[in-house]
Amino acid sequence: MIKHALNVTRDGDFAQWYQTVITEADMAEESGVRGCMVIRPWGYGIWERIQRLLDDRIKATGHENCYFPIFIPLSYFEKEAEHVDGFAKEMAVVTHHRLIQKDGRLVPDPAAKLEEPLVVRPTSETVIGAAFSRWVQSWRDLPVLINQWANVVRWEMRTRMFLRTAEFLWQEGHTAHATVEEARDETLKMLEVYRSFAEDCVAMPVIAGEKPENERFPGAVETWSIEAMMQDGKALQAGTSHFLGTTFSSAQDIKFQNASGEQELAQTTSWGMSTRMIGGLIMTHGDDDGLRVPPRVAPWQVVIVPMLRDNDDDAALIDYCKSIQQELAQLSAFGEPVRALLDLKSVKAVTKRWGWIKKGAPIVVEVGGRDMAGGNVSVIRRDRLYREDGKLDSAIVARGDFVETATATLKGIQDALFEQAKARTEANITRDVTDFAGLEAFFEKGGKTPGWVEVNWSKPTGAELDKVVERLKALKLTFRNVPIGAAPAEGSCIFTGAPAVERILVAKSY
Amino acid sequence: MIKHALNVTRDGDFAQWYQTVITEADMAEESGVRGCMVIRPWGYGIWERIQRLLDDRIKATGHENCYFPIFIPLSYFEKEAEHVDGFAKEMAVVTHHRLIQKDGRLVPDPAAKLEEPLVVRPTSETVIGAAFSRWVQSWRDLPVLINQWANVVRWEMRTRMFLRTAEFLWQEGHTAHATVEEARDETLKMLEVYRSFAEDCVAMPVIAGEKPENERFPGAVETWSIEAMMQDGKALQAGTSHFLGTTFSSAQDIKFQNASGEQELAQTTSWGMSTRMIGGLIMTHGDDDGLRVPPRVAPWQVVIVPMLRDNDDDAALIDYCKSIQQELAQLSAFGEPVRALLDLKSVKAVTKRWGWIKKGAPIVVEVGGRDMAGGNVSVIRRDRLYREDGKLDSAIVARGDFVETATATLKGIQDALFEQAKARTEANITRDVTDFAGLEAFFEKGGKTPGWVEVNWSKPTGAELDKVVERLKALKLTFRNVPIGAAPAEGSCIFTGAPAVERILVAKSY
Repeated sequence: MIKHALNVTRDGDFAQWYQTVITEADMAEESGVRGCMVIRPWGYGIWERIQRLLDDRIKATGHENCYFPIFIPLSYFEKEAEHVDGFAKEMAVVTHHRLIQKDGRLVPDPAAKLEEPLVVRPTSETVIGAAFSRWVQSWRDLPVLINQWANVVRWEMRTRMFLRTAEFLWQEGHTAHATVEEARDETLKMLEVYRSFAEDCVAMPVIAGEKPENERFPGAVETWSIEAMMQDGKALQAGTSHFLGTTFSSAQDIKFQNASGEQELAQTTSWGMSTRMIGGLIMTHGDDDGLRVPPRVAPWQVVIVPMLRDNDDDAALIDYCKSIQQELAQLSAFGEPVRALLDLKSVKAVTKRWGWIKKGAPIVVEVGGRDMAGGNVSVIRRDRLYREDGKLDSAIVARGDFVETATATLKGIQDALFEQAKARTEANITRDVTDFAGLEAFFEKGGKTPGWVEVNWSKPTGAELDKVVERLKALKLTFRNVPIGAAPAEGSCIFTGAPAVERILVAKSY
Repeated sequence: MIKHALNVTRDGDFAQWYQTVITEADMAEESGVRGCMVIRPWGYGIWERIQRLLDDRIKATGHENCYFPIFIPLSYFEKEAEHVDGFAKEMAVVTHHRLIQKDGRLVPDPAAKLEEPLVVRPTSETVIGAAFSRWVQSWRDLPVLINQWANVVRWEMRTRMFLRTAEFLWQEGHTAHATVEEARDETLKMLEVYRSFAEDCVAMPVIAGEKPENERFPGAVETWSIEAMMQDGKALQAGTSHFLGTTFSSAQDIKFQNASGEQELAQTTSWGMSTRMIGGLIMTHGDDDGLRVPPRVAPWQVVIVPMLRDNDDDAALIDYCKSIQQELAQLSAFGEPVRALLDLKSVKAVTKRWGWIKKGAPIVVEVGGRDMAGGNVSVIRRDRLYREDGKLDSAIVARGDFVETATATLKGIQDALFEQAKARTEANITRDVTDFAGLEAFFEKGGKTPGWVEVNWSKPTGAELDKVVERLKALKLTFRNVPIGAAPAEGSCIFTGAPAVERILVAKSY
């Protein structure tokens, strides 16, 4: 039996396992500030990779980055009732601009109270809409295609590292268009950017589709999402793209003169992906030995650990490792130079080995005196850690062969992680539930979440939809989305009995 | 006489010229939120270039990026009195976590008042110090070398775009070391990173040196800065590096067991550079036609403008321009691919020309039908815009020659901008003022600021220093720094009459 690196398994306690991976991989920690985390170098390094790769795609689709204020005056929110209803309960509010000493403690200075309180942005539609209204006068000014990388704050009561934190990091795209058609195209284009980014870079298979009415972003006409299946069978919403119609352009007065000289309201969109993606990465690829990071988003793709002995041979060993590192750095994987680290910290080699395994570095290369003498290296692939006999699979390979195949190996690891997750996701989507009792039965099988169910529905709205949502809630279930490319609905809705119009995913979710 | 692109000159009204450049170059604008600006794509693009190049240097010196909470509980500040005194007057304070409707307006919910108010970080020594105290136990955990890219808030009463805004963007490095010597070495190493970055990348000559006691960061033992001379003769502090000693390690309990088994306080440093750098870039390189961006930090280094005529010839012209763009993108300048934009917006070519000149794109390439027929392009270099006869210097060049020399031309522009600024800075530092009357006389010559003065001083401290600072203040002057590598002080201090110990820069400043 394999003795794994973590003291908790996914099967044993998934929630505890998740926290343990974050801690053991040095990704993040509690900050001491309510609901906020400290993102440590390994976690932040993954975020930097996500930023770089996603930013390239956002720019390649014609968007430019800007930066807007972190503070939003209350009056901006008052203009859009539905939007504020969605966020008012969880806003951090700045009311003073100075501190004074009182009885030996620091307190807000009553003489420095703001006339109009400011909200720390939970999202930026209102403040960016105000800018758009200044920028847009004529159809020639459209489209406006903007993105922002920023921190936002939503005062969540129950927080969980990466998945739900009071402050989180994200990008938020905001665009304005002359026509509904163009704005809807943009919404779907960015959804596709998210889908391909998640699958190609994070090796995370997702289902892209439209959210039902009750799951829409406050103020949106349509909300689309990508949903990923975690290893516990729950769904994680990993990115959203909203067609906002004229909700914000009418509230913020984003008007343009069209080619015929008439004033029209612009059609806007917004779309975002956040540090939540890192939580999804963990729950998609982690195993009982810790994290496994797909090579494209790994801060270090290859980590070289020399087995130092604190003696005169160390210098030669380090030189040997350095030359391997340099050869790797000359290589290109996924269109970028290979990122190879030589780990020279004064820590025991075996501790380093397991440290990097828990962190999920794709390839760990150990080099001892015997390896060097034979012109070899010992290679551990994080995606296939153990041999069939349960022993750690560390393969002795000629250094030349290792370097020559390193790019292909990284590609192989990236593909293997995606294929594993894809197979698991596919195997756990059930499509043959035909009535509500079947749905109940499916989710009542034992303690584990058996996955997702795709069912017929009649797309009810308003009060009728609310009733359906309540029934799901009683089972701790939610609608995820109506998958793009799902089979046509045939038969009747499992909730209303009315003729089905489309297929929708139902799941437990984060 | 040259008719320049801006309606205000540097000589006419420098402050108004600065605002005009920002507006005409589409860099930033007022946001409607007090003291906060919107950074538009051209301004933010420059910031992204600064980030990329500086981040590479920060990582190359062994630092890793992290992310810490934007909110800091008041109790963290209470631990370090001098630090809080420095910032308490300008802190944005979060006191509530929910809004409710009252009489049709949104107001902070009295039932959602925070037990302990939170400050929006003005700088992160306290919250990062708290993390360091968790991370550091033994000498083996040292050094800790961390950097953060973040937004910070200082509630300034008088704001000015890029130079002084309530919210600004920056990087803040924070490190902990076992010894004073190592921490001081780090402080100076990062000062040198700033100096070389400013000069090599932003083409901004700077003077690196130590700040006098009265200009130290709140809580610092030593503060070092780089100072740049703006075209109006004033000084801009463009980056600072602080040796913090045990100020924060004693407040935040950052202790380690040394090799002899004893508990010691760590020695810490911090260092930062911000979006203020963009203000410095404008005032260093801008001219009466707008901004001039050094090629290394220009979002687009070459902008290609086809002279479209809305007829059948346009397609061929666009193809011709595209092929030039593609050839440029294959080239490398400063170790990176050349960034070439093909401007296809539906705007008149002459408007585009002046738009890009005002934005300061290093090279603007115009291509008309006649250029194409001759296999040529028309090239405008932003660093030498006019011929001797006052006409715009647009040179017709064979396209092959243009592409072949583009890398060298970019390098030439980068060097020319630096050399111009360097010559101006050197010419405007006066080193022969030997008494206070001479200082007064120097700064009283007419309305313009004649530059900086480097004088002898005796390095007074405490009340004696305060008196000197007051005398300077009456002349609207400040101490900038004691330049590294200044000539030895000989003679007496121009302020105290005591024997001089070093040379110090005196200037008007931003």
